Amino acid sequence: MQSGSIDLLVCGAAEIATPRGVSPLHGRSMAAIEVVRNGAVAVRGERIVDVGPEHELRARYSPRRELDCRGGTLVPGFVDAHTHPVFATTREDEFEMRTAGASYVEIAAAGGGILSTTRGVREASREELARSLCVHLDRFLALGTTTVEAKSGYGLSVADELKCLQAIREARALHAVDVVPTFLGAHDFPAEYRERRGAYVDLVVDEMLPRVASERLAEYCDVFTESIAFSLDDSRRILSRARELGLGLRLHVDQLTPLGGAELAAELRAASADHLEHVSERGIEALRSAQVIPVLCPVVPLFLRQEREAPARRMIDAGLAVAISTDFNPGSCYLQSMPEVISWSALRYRMSAAECLTAATLNAACSLGRGREIGSIEPHKRADLVLLDLPNHRHLAYELGRNPVRAVVARGRVIER
Amino acid sequence: MQSGSIDLLVCGAAEIATPRGVSPLHGRSMAAIEVVRNGAVAVRGERIVDVGPEHELRARYSPRRELDCRGGTLVPGFVDAHTHPVFATTREDEFEMRTAGASYVEIAAAGGGILSTTRGVREASREELARSLCVHLDRFLALGTTTVEAKSGYGLSVADELKCLQAIREARALHAVDVVPTFLGAHDFPAEYRERRGAYVDLVVDEMLPRVASERLAEYCDVFTESIAFSLDDSRRILSRARELGLGLRLHVDQLTPLGGAELAAELRAASADHLEHVSERGIEALRSAQVIPVLCPVVPLFLRQEREAPARRMIDAGLAVAISTDFNPGSCYLQSMPEVISWSALRYRMSAAECLTAATLNAACSLGRGREIGSIEPHKRADLVLLDLPNHRHLAYELGRNPVRAVVARGRVIER
Repeated sequence: MQSGSIDLLVCGAAEIATPRGVSPLHGRSMAAIEVVRNGAVAVRGERIVDVGPEHELRARYSPRRELDCRGGTLVPGFVDAHTHPVFATTREDEFEMRTAGASYVEIAAAGGGILSTTRGVREASREELARSLCVHLDRFLALGTTTVEAKSGYGLSVADELKCLQAIREARALHAVDVVPTFLGAHDFPAEYRERRGAYVDLVVDEMLPRVASERLAEYCDVFTESIAFSLDDSRRILSRARELGLGLRLHVDQLTPLGGAELAAELRAASADHLEHVSERGIEALRSAQVIPVLCPVVPLFLRQEREAPARRMIDAGLAVAISTDFNPGSCYLQSMPEVISWSALRYRMSAAECLTAATLNAACSLGRGREIGSIEPHKRADLVLLDLPNHRHLAYELGRNPVRAVVARGRVIER
Repeated sequence: MQSGSIDLLVCGAAEIATPRGVSPLHGRSMAAIEVVRNGAVAVRGERIVDVGPEHELRARYSPRRELDCRGGTLVPGFVDAHTHPVFATTREDEFEMRTAGASYVEIAAAGGGILSTTRGVREASREELARSLCVHLDRFLALGTTTVEAKSGYGLSVADELKCLQAIREARALHAVDVVPTFLGAHDFPAEYRERRGAYVDLVVDEMLPRVASERLAEYCDVFTESIAFSLDDSRRILSRARELGLGLRLHVDQLTPLGGAELAAELRAASADHLEHVSERGIEALRSAQVIPVLCPVVPLFLRQEREAPARRMIDAGLAVAISTDFNPGSCYLQSMPEVISWSALRYRMSAAECLTAATLNAACSLGRGREIGSIEPHKRADLVLLDLPNHRHLAYELGRNPVRAVVARGRVIER
């Protein structure tokens, strides 16, 4: 049993609510979280060293600092496993066109869509992109997110994709939020390759990926596998090369059409299969067999005014270790709040608050290969914690439209709001 | 033209965006807001004295204090015209039962529903209710709401309804948010009157209303006119008496069934008709003829997992002066954020950002009889302003799940977050 001096005692919590373990809960109940009442957390350096009843921890440790939760609820730092936060321009006009009833084609004809963001990113310097990314990271942190996956994908040329990933590296070095970089050169075909798509796939495979790998600019490679974007064959080619180069794999699949992307994610043993609004029963079974983590984005169909939503309940009931994310991006979801994602997962997916908490922390961490490191409040894990101004974890789902975060602990450092 | 010393100059705004006028925009375009770029607002005491280009106001006035918007957007303080903020207990368990698929009847059988809140309110003291209301008001203010309508309606006895209205009066006297009290004794039938509903209507008419009026505890009387609550005849009787006693009228109508409540609101010349998910075409025409303001609650059907939504677009296109509100309450919508209401009005009702802004400020103010006083940024109106950390007013609709409020000016006083 540990004892002695510690750097931080987080005390006075009405509830400490956390999933447990280091691996995704495939086939185990996502609702089986642990709730400790009147508990405390002992932190030394960047690490959690103990969790338990406050009176026991007080008897055992001499803390240099205390963070009094004053009856709030303590949960693990949120892990947002799917975001596109590297952009320089916003698309509020396109949002308003869409709510007025404009179609995808009309929006594209008016200069909207992914490529409008590409124009802005290409004109921006690496420094400008890093600076705006830091603003986004500030907001993620204020909303309780301590680890965020960040994709490139609005550069769509060798130089601009590298610039985006370098901006991520720069911002990561400066910020308390941990950032997991993902290369998404295959997000769309840039205007100059619209008539020669094969050549763009060649560019991704032969030039972008080797540079990304040799400069160690990304941990993952992602592809937008979709009828309007990259085919199953193109996706397989890109992702197979990425795997050879040592990158992990994530895929945007079955978002707009049932293309069979989930099956491809399973075939490639990807770390995650994301979106899945149109996943088939066979796709769900393939993900289950291959133990791929579905990363769902519940607010995206609402933001896009699309009816079809991911069959989250069926996936969870089938034993999949579902994660939930914001999909923060300037076109299809201008949202950075994991508390809001939790509420909408409850409302749209019929997930319980406990399932949402697991999906927003441990399962998301596992999808990023960090299950041993983060995603739960347990000894040896990194001290990434969120103090919520809520009497219990169920309020996380129940309360809408308010940021309940009162303080964040990131790598053991306290950041009060 | 005014000139001379002023108390406050609000300057440095990229945009000042506001509707104009002192009356609801019946038959006029809700989208016709005024947008002043690089503008400023001059404030003396509680009042706006001037609005215009910053360089002109600087030449004209000597401010004692400045509030620099640093490129943000300035809009009128939000007016939330429909809330139930006087309660002592929350209903997160009921929320989770509902998302798990429980029906209204099952939830009621498990002790949920309005009457579960009534139990908590009856056990609470006036002081306790005022204290918890102040916490809610703090959060309203932090989210940019400077005027909020507040209903009683969880007491459901003479003593407990008066206690709730007294708690509102107490909190109002203490708080920067202006509170408009509404008596909603006819919110539901309390358990002890379930078998003798007529006697409860008598109690409301003969005992509650005279006390509420003589003690000047409310400006408005509201009734939940619905098949499961108060019939059209009961509602007419209660509201007619309220009008005789000098109260304004608001109604919960056509929320769950098409009972014809909108027509009743028009017949009674009510100030507002609220909810309206099931309003008929005849009901819309009646509201238009009688110039009743529809107060819509876009998040409620989402929170209740109900499909039917108010036909806001049809009402606006018919020339109605629509207002939007949170309907903050512990059962059917735990939401206090008008910025969030604006986003969901855009997404669900297909309202433009300009229409949303009018609905969340001037039209809501007019529904509360305060069109001359608040609801727009114009000389002579009260200096209730919200400074948003947003580059333009369209971002209010476009950005979800973040509180964009950087500062609030309430009656000329600056409150920075």
